[in-house]
Amino acid sequence: MALIVQKFGGSSVADAKKLFNVAGRVTDAYKEGNSVVVVVSAQGDTTDDLIAKAHEINESPSKREMDVLLSTGEQISISLLAMAIEKMGFPVVSLTGWQAGMNTDSNYGSARIKTIDTERLKRELDSRRIVIVAGFQGINKYDDITTLGRGGSDTTAVALAAALGADVCEIYTDVDGIYTADPRIVKNARKLDDISYDEMLELASLGANVLHNRSVELALKYNVKLEVKSSFERIPGTIVKEVGKVEKMLVRGVTRDNNVARISLVNIEDTPGKAFKIFSLLAKKNINVDVILQSIGRGNTKDITFTVEEGSLQAAIDVLQENLSSIGATDVKYTKDISKVSVVGAGMASNPGVATLMFEALYDANINIHMISTSEIKISVLIDQKDAENAVRAIHDKFKLA
Amino acid sequence: MALIVQKFGGSSVADAKKLFNVAGRVTDAYKEGNSVVVVVSAQGDTTDDLIAKAHEINESPSKREMDVLLSTGEQISISLLAMAIEKMGFPVVSLTGWQAGMNTDSNYGSARIKTIDTERLKRELDSRRIVIVAGFQGINKYDDITTLGRGGSDTTAVALAAALGADVCEIYTDVDGIYTADPRIVKNARKLDDISYDEMLELASLGANVLHNRSVELALKYNVKLEVKSSFERIPGTIVKEVGKVEKMLVRGVTRDNNVARISLVNIEDTPGKAFKIFSLLAKKNINVDVILQSIGRGNTKDITFTVEEGSLQAAIDVLQENLSSIGATDVKYTKDISKVSVVGAGMASNPGVATLMFEALYDANINIHMISTSEIKISVLIDQKDAENAVRAIHDKFKLA
Repeated sequence: MALIVQKFGGSSVADAKKLFNVAGRVTDAYKEGNSVVVVVSAQGDTTDDLIAKAHEINESPSKREMDVLLSTGEQISISLLAMAIEKMGFPVVSLTGWQAGMNTDSNYGSARIKTIDTERLKRELDSRRIVIVAGFQGINKYDDITTLGRGGSDTTAVALAAALGADVCEIYTDVDGIYTADPRIVKNARKLDDISYDEMLELASLGANVLHNRSVELALKYNVKLEVKSSFERIPGTIVKEVGKVEKMLVRGVTRDNNVARISLVNIEDTPGKAFKIFSLLAKKNINVDVILQSIGRGNTKDITFTVEEGSLQAAIDVLQENLSSIGATDVKYTKDISKVSVVGAGMASNPGVATLMFEALYDANINIHMISTSEIKISVLIDQKDAENAVRAIHDKFKLA
Repeated sequence: MALIVQKFGGSSVADAKKLFNVAGRVTDAYKEGNSVVVVVSAQGDTTDDLIAKAHEINESPSKREMDVLLSTGEQISISLLAMAIEKMGFPVVSLTGWQAGMNTDSNYGSARIKTIDTERLKRELDSRRIVIVAGFQGINKYDDITTLGRGGSDTTAVALAAALGADVCEIYTDVDGIYTADPRIVKNARKLDDISYDEMLELASLGANVLHNRSVELALKYNVKLEVKSSFERIPGTIVKEVGKVEKMLVRGVTRDNNVARISLVNIEDTPGKAFKIFSLLAKKNINVDVILQSIGRGNTKDITFTVEEGSLQAAIDVLQENLSSIGATDVKYTKDISKVSVVGAGMASNPGVATLMFEALYDANINIHMISTSEIKISVLIDQKDAENAVRAIHDKFKLA
């Protein structure tokens, strides 16, 4: 039969009842004769509680010690889920990140998986045990515990699926699949049966809070078939896989991301190397920059505007203020009251009409566009946050996604 | 300077304030130029909370998974203490049991330390870091997490002190040393400056809840100098070490242990092998038996009476009831309403008057003795639990220990 990797998030394992629900999903797959590897996150608010505990003692603890602390959250989950599965009478073993052979680099707090030593995993699967693996964590070459940062458990699941050659990696979540738009905003949003990696990647990075783009990138790289489905309802989800060019549907979905801040450096001296200077300063602080827009030079100065995640705003402002004179700008301006609204679809590149249609929808809804960014398969606009939900609805209607 | 191992129990690290108190003790020793290894237990009620969490899911989970769960308690403590020490500006690193090289057997829940691979510990100490080690836990040959069971953190500390050749192993507790009797029962009990391993061993196993006898045994075996002292007050404690024969004081202390249950098997067929049969049944269930008393055979039957810890009573009754016919007894009787009161002192063996004096004290206080057990350096009696405190006071007075 098949080898299945299942991943359950923190809200799916938050209490005893939910753990038994998960145990039921896991043992059903096992009873069908499949080999099952399960990746779990920390229960409910455990991670936040541990962070609060740490900050009570030290507002800026070393990342190494933070990882020692945070990794206990998933270790608690794996043992409790294993106990639930034992209770149901199935053979099971829990493995921490280091026991599961998750070797990472030493970037504590946001480590990258380097290799997976699958020997133990395979041995446990060969003895027909259900294997529960702690998500989000690994071990570096110094035998120190690391954590993978945002989207860590999804990444663990996909990486395990790739390393073990799993037939499918099932991501169980609060929602039952990928929609053409957030159903809380757009009432007639429609669930997609399948979606390509590229499209999912754009959706993930554009605010569809279902799969972290890091895990989708990994799935694309290793051709891991993903299925996003509900933890609670037993219905088919959305399959993410390599699909043939879809000509009939240009746009697969509309997303909104409020977790965006815009920063502008104004009156920068118009000499070469300025962009390099600015973005290398930000990269050193591990700040990811998204949309970048540089004004056409007027006289001897120019402006550079870009967006970052809201959580990185303060750090970005700090490093830019410190280096304002060496950058050669007069001022740093910023706002958090913006949203990024995007349309995504693999058929878009060859259809210039898509952008026009999107801008028309926004014009009809009287929404002002601040910045525009395009790629092969998506178009994003920055607009005022107050307009974002209207924009999503207007675009969803305009493209007849319902 | 010296190499010091310090051990702090769960109540000493229960919250942020207490963690900083501990951090202060640790860094003071470090500032004096010493190399410092610190062993900590789980915070306050953490272990009990984790056990409750497990039992909510499975009342009898596998011991392997229980150890995965319980070991998170100490892992949380080590990281938080390291963060407190970082906050005070000292170099520090936390190590879990497996990182600290604590290799144990595979007896989950009550594993024994086999070897300690000190390579990492020594490397960290050589780079002048304070090393925080998770007590109570280790790793077996399968790379699975184990816990050491009762007295585990004391055992970790003493084992580390032995492996590293530490100059002293300081055990920090709620009390400020070893007393001639429990100060809560006997008002004029006196703190001892020092005590021999043998005496401490008897006191520990007889209900002085300061050091677990397992850790004292280990200290004796490897000649580790122990000091029992207060976590909170900065005063000298009691030193446990090899001391010369003490002739002037026969009795060093009086203890009471309420955690005792008495079991009697009555009307056992008086044929050879019965005691072997009974105690091997109990040993298989990992039940420790303490005082044993066998009645002189009367006709063709005899009675065997013995004591176990209260926590083992139910398991002992169960296994004996199941095998009652093969043991050849008619009935199992038991009671929990008893206490063991003991006097301990290395000078006792050569002074037969000690037992007489003890029995006289109990007679004067009108206390009935159920069973008597003696060793080279202690005399224990089993009495009704209601009489126990009176008995301790009466004996303490009789031996003029104040």
